[in-house]
Amino acid sequence: MTEVDVPSGAPAAIATPAPGDPRLARLSLNQATTKRLTVHEAVDGCVRAGLPAIGLWREPVADAGLAESARMVADAGLRVSSLCRGGFFTTDAGVDETRRAVEEAAALGTDCLVLVVGGLPEGSRDLPAARGRVADGVATLAPFAAAHGVRLALEPMHPIYCADRGVVSTLGQALDLAEAFPAEQVGVVVDTFHVWWDPAVHDQIARAGPRIASYQVCDWITPLPPDALLARGMMGDGHIDFGRLGASVAAAGYAGDIEVEIFNADVWAADGDAVIATLARRYVQHVLDG
Amino acid sequence: MTEVDVPSGAPAAIATPAPGDPRLARLSLNQATTKRLTVHEAVDGCVRAGLPAIGLWREPVADAGLAESARMVADAGLRVSSLCRGGFFTTDAGVDETRRAVEEAAALGTDCLVLVVGGLPEGSRDLPAARGRVADGVATLAPFAAAHGVRLALEPMHPIYCADRGVVSTLGQALDLAEAFPAEQVGVVVDTFHVWWDPAVHDQIARAGPRIASYQVCDWITPLPPDALLARGMMGDGHIDFGRLGASVAAAGYAGDIEVEIFNADVWAADGDAVIATLARRYVQHVLDG
Repeated sequence: MTEVDVPSGAPAAIATPAPGDPRLARLSLNQATTKRLTVHEAVDGCVRAGLPAIGLWREPVADAGLAESARMVADAGLRVSSLCRGGFFTTDAGVDETRRAVEEAAALGTDCLVLVVGGLPEGSRDLPAARGRVADGVATLAPFAAAHGVRLALEPMHPIYCADRGVVSTLGQALDLAEAFPAEQVGVVVDTFHVWWDPAVHDQIARAGPRIASYQVCDWITPLPPDALLARGMMGDGHIDFGRLGASVAAAGYAGDIEVEIFNADVWAADGDAVIATLARRYVQHVLDG
Repeated sequence: MTEVDVPSGAPAAIATPAPGDPRLARLSLNQATTKRLTVHEAVDGCVRAGLPAIGLWREPVADAGLAESARMVADAGLRVSSLCRGGFFTTDAGVDETRRAVEEAAALGTDCLVLVVGGLPEGSRDLPAARGRVADGVATLAPFAAAHGVRLALEPMHPIYCADRGVVSTLGQALDLAEAFPAEQVGVVVDTFHVWWDPAVHDQIARAGPRIASYQVCDWITPLPPDALLARGMMGDGHIDFGRLGASVAAAGYAGDIEVEIFNADVWAADGDAVIATLARRYVQHVLDG
């Protein structure tokens, strides 16, 4: 029986790598890709498919319980490649929430806390001030995180989200912020969706070097779905050249897990195992061999 | 009777400037803002409202006839602040179409031809190659345009459009391209919608200096409408700080017309005179006095 990719419905171009296949050695399921699954279900899905790592999100972890979540991933032998997410420093609750997120990351056994820094405060048009609040938030929390063995991973977000999600819009800008701190305290996330368009992206990946705390992949698809927050596609369904970006990330020295993070209503509606099988195939095709 | 702003429905915050008001001296209606209007109707609308300039689009000009359009704007005493648009150099027809657009710009009496450079070619993921084609297209046409008294105005587009509209994504990148040519041959468009998020925007506006060929304004609104091409808002309805951007543009030496260009289904559905009255008020409030 031919397997079918989701959500495209196209026949699978390659066989699904089996558990133990060395090509899966760095592949991580970011939990946002299988949004309907509990931590327990997502962990089981990773184990069945042979994925060695998972990127967790705070909300489902809270639903399952922090200690129970930590126990489940440990029992399953999975690495926790990151915890999403802290940040939102442009809101009043941002710093306190991020402090809790640091503690949760430590409890879950990951050293990578992804920060989405927040958009413009309600009613404000002062972008430089919002960016200043981000710098202040990072300065406040970097030593606290380091004391917990957690690195803050600043995620530059696609400029489409500048007003309402993240005022750090380029990898270069994230590095300008990060470089005020030791590399082991503050790193950056390279997410293909957010950075693929940037004329400076390869230079900035090289500049990032050991500050790359996480590499996340998904595709840019057109036409954009009506909800721009759900505009991410399965690798290969869109316009991103993963080979070139991956080569730059590797040349910069990054050898950690590679997370697949896809916000997409059609992916969320699909069967979890089918999603994980598809992303494993597409990862091999486009990210490893791209 | 209190006037009402469109499309917000909010009461007008200031009186509509009357024809002859010196605050209107640089205000231009980009025809895309009143998409349903013919050239004749848009010209009449500008005259009724006292706007001294109009930015034309090739399609409605073709509908009205090139010579007839030129006659109408001349008879009305309007400046043609720009013609939209040439470009699409990443498609096979791009260069030839842009050559025709240059001739039309000259016939209409404007020295500013706005270039939307085009997205990735169908099925291609090779962004550097697409950007290379843009450089080639500009090189091919810059002398031709100059011989017609027309300057090519490269418009960096918001990264949301990188895949399908314009692979020139930042003002800095546009200037890298433009600076291979004399400033009087190749300039850039500063459109607030496209550049407002860029951490380098003020530095790049200063760098642009006499290369600023057009300054276009509209707002970034959230949530984004379902069709991302129609995501532009009336000034004041969104998140952009027009005061700061306008100050940088003025400091760079730009003293030309300021076009209001809004792609927005609700604006298009509104009465043309109401749209022009609103944009005149909002221009005074947010762009002149912002």
